[in-house]
Amino acid sequence: AQIALEQGYEARREFDARYRVVMSNVDDAVVFVSVQSGRIEDANKQAAAVLGLKPDALTGVSFASLFSDRSVAELTESLMNATLSDDATPVTVVTSRTRQEVGLYPVLFRASGQRVLMCRLVGSHDKPVVDGAS
Amino acid sequence: AQIALEQGYEARREFDARYRVVMSNVDDAVVFVSVQSGRIEDANKQAAAVLGLKPDALTGVSFASLFSDRSVAELTESLMNATLSDDATPVTVVTSRTRQEVGLYPVLFRASGQRVLMCRLVGSHDKPVVDGAS
Repeated sequence: AQIALEQGYEARREFDARYRVVMSNVDDAVVFVSVQSGRIEDANKQAAAVLGLKPDALTGVSFASLFSDRSVAELTESLMNATLSDDATPVTVVTSRTRQEVGLYPVLFRASGQRVLMCRLVGSHDKPVVDGAS
Repeated sequence: AQIALEQGYEARREFDARYRVVMSNVDDAVVFVSVQSGRIEDANKQAAAVLGLKPDALTGVSFASLFSDRSVAELTESLMNATLSDDATPVTVVTSRTRQEVGLYPVLFRASGQRVLMCRLVGSHDKPVVDGAS
């Protein structure tokens, strides 16, 4: 039993290490959001750069609070609907801090019995959103 | 103690789930290679597509065997040297199956006491390598 426990511990550390390395080194900006709470479970520095925040400032934050004109309920519903559609149409939002238009590409999965959304954030880097006549 | 074990188990499943979702859904082609053995520990379907193989055909395979004219020792040395340089110059290789020029961008890390290279594979999709007069 002790060996099995140690193997489990080693396997967890292996996944943990690989997870952190892949999050840090891919091009994609990635955020994990709890469906139940709407809060960010984890995000990489690429996502933080798109959102205009430091990476360690993102964990635990309400995902919807980072975007203009979106309530938590609205954003979650939009993201869940997007995961049901076959085409890869993003949910388009505007970041509160950097006023950039960003496309959110969500994938729904379960972890430890909880529903989680992995969202890729794809910025339109050279298209700042102009505050219009609204 | 039982609660701690269950929490450890849950945490491992959580990392495991996140790891698999991020590997499957990022744009990057990613391969994990053991430094000691030169064999692939894990790879995503994006990497399999670049290499012209099925994803489940990659695990356990010698990474160097997927490229022309590279011994395991040569490829490992080139990748390790690339992790030491400051600039992001890739190790350029030619795939055995698809004859495509691919840039390997390696990152070195430790997992469970073993050195592992995470390699991103960046293909030059529209530049097939012509078998020359060599």
